[in-house]
Amino acid sequence: MTATLTEAGLAGLAARALAGLGLERRDAEDCARILVLGELMGLSTHGVGRIESYGERLDLGGIKARPDIRVHKVAPAIAKVDGDNGVGPLVGMRALRAAMELARETGVGIAFARASNHFGPVAPYSLIAAEAGFASIIGSNASTTIAPWGGRDARLGNSPVGFCVPNPGGQPVILDMALSVVARAKIRNAAKRGEAIPPTWATDKDGKPTTDPNAALGGFLLPIGGHKGYGLALVVDLFAGLLSGAAFLTHVSSWSDNPESPSDLGHFFFLIDCARLGPADRLADRMREFAAIIHDTPPADPASPVLLPGEIELGRLERHRRDGIAIDEALVAKLESLAARQGA
Amino acid sequence: MTATLTEAGLAGLAARALAGLGLERRDAEDCARILVLGELMGLSTHGVGRIESYGERLDLGGIKARPDIRVHKVAPAIAKVDGDNGVGPLVGMRALRAAMELARETGVGIAFARASNHFGPVAPYSLIAAEAGFASIIGSNASTTIAPWGGRDARLGNSPVGFCVPNPGGQPVILDMALSVVARAKIRNAAKRGEAIPPTWATDKDGKPTTDPNAALGGFLLPIGGHKGYGLALVVDLFAGLLSGAAFLTHVSSWSDNPESPSDLGHFFFLIDCARLGPADRLADRMREFAAIIHDTPPADPASPVLLPGEIELGRLERHRRDGIAIDEALVAKLESLAARQGA
Repeated sequence: MTATLTEAGLAGLAARALAGLGLERRDAEDCARILVLGELMGLSTHGVGRIESYGERLDLGGIKARPDIRVHKVAPAIAKVDGDNGVGPLVGMRALRAAMELARETGVGIAFARASNHFGPVAPYSLIAAEAGFASIIGSNASTTIAPWGGRDARLGNSPVGFCVPNPGGQPVILDMALSVVARAKIRNAAKRGEAIPPTWATDKDGKPTTDPNAALGGFLLPIGGHKGYGLALVVDLFAGLLSGAAFLTHVSSWSDNPESPSDLGHFFFLIDCARLGPADRLADRMREFAAIIHDTPPADPASPVLLPGEIELGRLERHRRDGIAIDEALVAKLESLAARQGA
Repeated sequence: MTATLTEAGLAGLAARALAGLGLERRDAEDCARILVLGELMGLSTHGVGRIESYGERLDLGGIKARPDIRVHKVAPAIAKVDGDNGVGPLVGMRALRAAMELARETGVGIAFARASNHFGPVAPYSLIAAEAGFASIIGSNASTTIAPWGGRDARLGNSPVGFCVPNPGGQPVILDMALSVVARAKIRNAAKRGEAIPPTWATDKDGKPTTDPNAALGGFLLPIGGHKGYGLALVVDLFAGLLSGAAFLTHVSSWSDNPESPSDLGHFFFLIDCARLGPADRLADRMREFAAIIHDTPPADPASPVLLPGEIELGRLERHRRDGIAIDEALVAKLESLAARQGA
């Protein structure tokens, strides 16, 4: 059974649930904004369902409900953000805002965040920045699931990274991806169905590509493009973890293995104020033409037109904003019960 | 037969050859620096052998030997560079220098170049920036060889992109890659040998993956990671082509098909001054530890230790700087004959 909620209804419920967990009202709204946008884009593994796990981790003392997040401007265009082990999307929103302020001043702004946690999906941050006129490159490191290319030990996270260019008056292009060929969930599903997996998805525990999903679950995710995706996952950790002053590689503490320890994740937010590059109508014209060239590509399969990155997610967002979104009633009840906690 | 040249000897020869083609002395040295670094890194398809083709294209009027390159600072941290259809590595060096100057001032600098040409390999720019203390993301668009994901027409370039983090007193990490699984040359080689290719390399002309190298040569290169690599190639063109004001997608004129027309390629150079993020010795310590964690990964094949991106190329550079580099005598003779032209 599901309940259909409006965006405002879901945002209000999520914010009340987070406030119930002890977050300050404004912080709860910031955090809810990211998770609700993720939910509306159909990224439900990184949506409001996460709030319950925040509660468990807050109860264990693994994250702080009321962190003292500090923003240090270390150069006219750079801020370093100390997340003080707050909830990830809250630290992320603070860092995004810091980067937007800098970019408004100097044309470009970078915020590096440390002492953070899983910050949710990248696309909502990209969209918020795009709606304010900023192009962006945003990334985070993550606990280890990928073996370095040619290795047989998980020493790299499946770090998410997003690239976005705004489109005044139209849909931005948002590429939000992790660097493994597939998520572990796809391998678990194949194992449940007893199906073989392509040898490009994962290796066994000895670092050898495997078609056996069970061997893969005991091994490591393979990055896209072999050494290329390995390189990308590694540089995302260099920017998000090493340069930010956060933990990196095997130093990132796993939420699931050590829920009571701070993860010390790092993120980066690079923003460019597109208004400095030319008039908005010129950007809109060029984005329209760019999209037209891609959309007009003859498809290999006539039933599947060629799409731009992010088009599916932004289409879902539009539909859910118009028609409301169906949320499992058990999840709604859970969020209501969190909202009723003393902290609210 | 080869001749062994020192770095200075090769740089001098390359600069004289470029001056022979009509470039101003200082411009010829800038351009030579990129091509010689590429050659020493073993990226010989993007090395000094390119100079001859510049000559052919200059003779046809497709590029200008003495462009009027303009740098416009449009924000404290952003420069737009009009390359005036100059030789690519020259426009690239001017843009890199502009970005370094901005980053020195504000912590971050971005240069967007338009009206440029093929700018050579990315790694030399990354290295020059790293040696001056800058982390970087650098990219260029390119003429079309890749079909958008699910399409059957080449509408995207195999755009190169590079990510680099400096390492004070040690080797930086440099990831320099194009977004296809393999270069066309590898498919041509398979065709010559009459060997099948993996279905992940390319599609036939109908956009269907193929193992026939001849069908692949009539079709399109496949990007790494399917829709993910497609997305990456597309966002590199958005940043390098669309935001810079250059041509993009199918508007990029192909050097080989239309050697007499300006390509109007675009590039971007994003630099971060790492000195603003903390003391150099702390960065060096963290980079050393990062490298140690990667290098200590147990290898899947005991004979192949795990490497960092760029390690092979930087090892070659070091070796060639120490021992000199072997250059084909026919190429040396060709460069000498260009150097003897009237322009020199």
